[in-house]
Amino acid sequence: MNLVNGIESDVISLHDRGWNYGDGAFRTLLLRNGRPHCWPRHYTKLRDDCVRLGIACPPSELFEQDFNFIAERHPDRTIRVVVTRGDMARGYAASLDIQPTRVVVAGAVPAYPAEYHDHGVRAHLCRTTFAIQPLLAGIKHLNRLENVLARSEWSDPGIAEGIVCDTEGNVVSGTMSNLFAAFGAELLTPDVSRSGVAGVQRARVLEFSKSRGIMAKTGVFGIVQLLTADEIFVVNSLIGAWQITSFEGKSWRSGELTPEFRRWLDGDD
Amino acid sequence: MNLVNGIESDVISLHDRGWNYGDGAFRTLLLRNGRPHCWPRHYTKLRDDCVRLGIACPPSELFEQDFNFIAERHPDRTIRVVVTRGDMARGYAASLDIQPTRVVVAGAVPAYPAEYHDHGVRAHLCRTTFAIQPLLAGIKHLNRLENVLARSEWSDPGIAEGIVCDTEGNVVSGTMSNLFAAFGAELLTPDVSRSGVAGVQRARVLEFSKSRGIMAKTGVFGIVQLLTADEIFVVNSLIGAWQITSFEGKSWRSGELTPEFRRWLDGDD
Repeated sequence: MNLVNGIESDVISLHDRGWNYGDGAFRTLLLRNGRPHCWPRHYTKLRDDCVRLGIACPPSELFEQDFNFIAERHPDRTIRVVVTRGDMARGYAASLDIQPTRVVVAGAVPAYPAEYHDHGVRAHLCRTTFAIQPLLAGIKHLNRLENVLARSEWSDPGIAEGIVCDTEGNVVSGTMSNLFAAFGAELLTPDVSRSGVAGVQRARVLEFSKSRGIMAKTGVFGIVQLLTADEIFVVNSLIGAWQITSFEGKSWRSGELTPEFRRWLDGDD
Repeated sequence: MNLVNGIESDVISLHDRGWNYGDGAFRTLLLRNGRPHCWPRHYTKLRDDCVRLGIACPPSELFEQDFNFIAERHPDRTIRVVVTRGDMARGYAASLDIQPTRVVVAGAVPAYPAEYHDHGVRAHLCRTTFAIQPLLAGIKHLNRLENVLARSEWSDPGIAEGIVCDTEGNVVSGTMSNLFAAFGAELLTPDVSRSGVAGVQRARVLEFSKSRGIMAKTGVFGIVQLLTADEIFVVNSLIGAWQITSFEGKSWRSGELTPEFRRWLDGDD
């Protein structure tokens, strides 16, 4: 069940600027027992991303109406929330009176293997690199070809995620997740002011660390340094947290940080 | 009149990967008197772009059927041809049996002011820069947020195009066009192996130059050098060639190169 501007629809106009240029932003989140998990955080992030793109983000209440409509029939769903700049005339210039398009796509909750949580996952080092573009970095926009190319590098179902560096060799993130690496008492996540996405779960990990007295901060590091980490995990709104236990020929035992963060991310705020 | 996989439609599936990720490539060209201008070149470029993205480009004949269908009713149109990777399940990974989606959107031919050809145009220097991404450079893909941001920098209708540099300060192109600059007997166009699009009209200018004994080549140069050019012009499949006669406080008289190239670009090959 999908909604376009609040009306049930499985299609979007060919004039939509999201389709033509990737001119929009999106969120992926869980509808759990009829409630959109961490919605206030997701909405704030969506609105901030829209501001950076110069798009007028619809008010939160409209999305909440959409969620309620969906939840009546399907209380547990993966939800993709998209805001595009709206319909175009022709060309890159947007008219001044353009109205944004609001889309909510609901799908089945992905069933990841239980062992991903219990024993961690294998990760692949992507040859694809993310470009350095401060104007777009951090934003979850619809220009995701780099992620598509990175994800296309492996088809082995035993590999759960790929790790991507920027064009200068700094680790950025997974193809669909943010990354954390523990070095001694310090937890590092790549700076995403030049590449990558500043995800909602990444922000929650940073906040939780603070409240628990774990020294977590953003940093710049390459693959060689990453391989010296005591524990590595990736997060997003669907997977929670997965420890990476096998990567680039190196293995890690199950750590204590990842399950702790996973439990917390599973919570209500 | 628009066609999706050969069937009249003004909408696309919400599961289309073009809409979700900008996962596709496109061309813009003119249908003139029922014939798609420079179609063999456009098709070759579209197919090459699809190869680089790992998308199976539909055969040329299918597009030609679409053009014929449209031309019966509308012989003069702007045509946007799009190939996306197809419909998605969920996530960045594409299934192995995915079928590409072929779209042809036909619209009115834009009516640019005659003075653009007669007296040249004013151009704006964009603050937006293009990221350096060799994996995507040259491809006319659907990830065009940088172009959208660059084009949003001005609303003055007296400005016809914006000039964009890469994040290292090298001139790349216009927001919707490729750029050429004459320095003495030499005609330079920015190298697009790290940013920008290798357009069909750019390739034609380079070829035409060869056949006319004009020394044209790709190069790397910044705005300071560009401002010392004897003549600057931009090209694409809709505008033909426009001379830039006003840019960054400098003016140029009408040159002889631009009209010559414009006439040639207007020709049949």
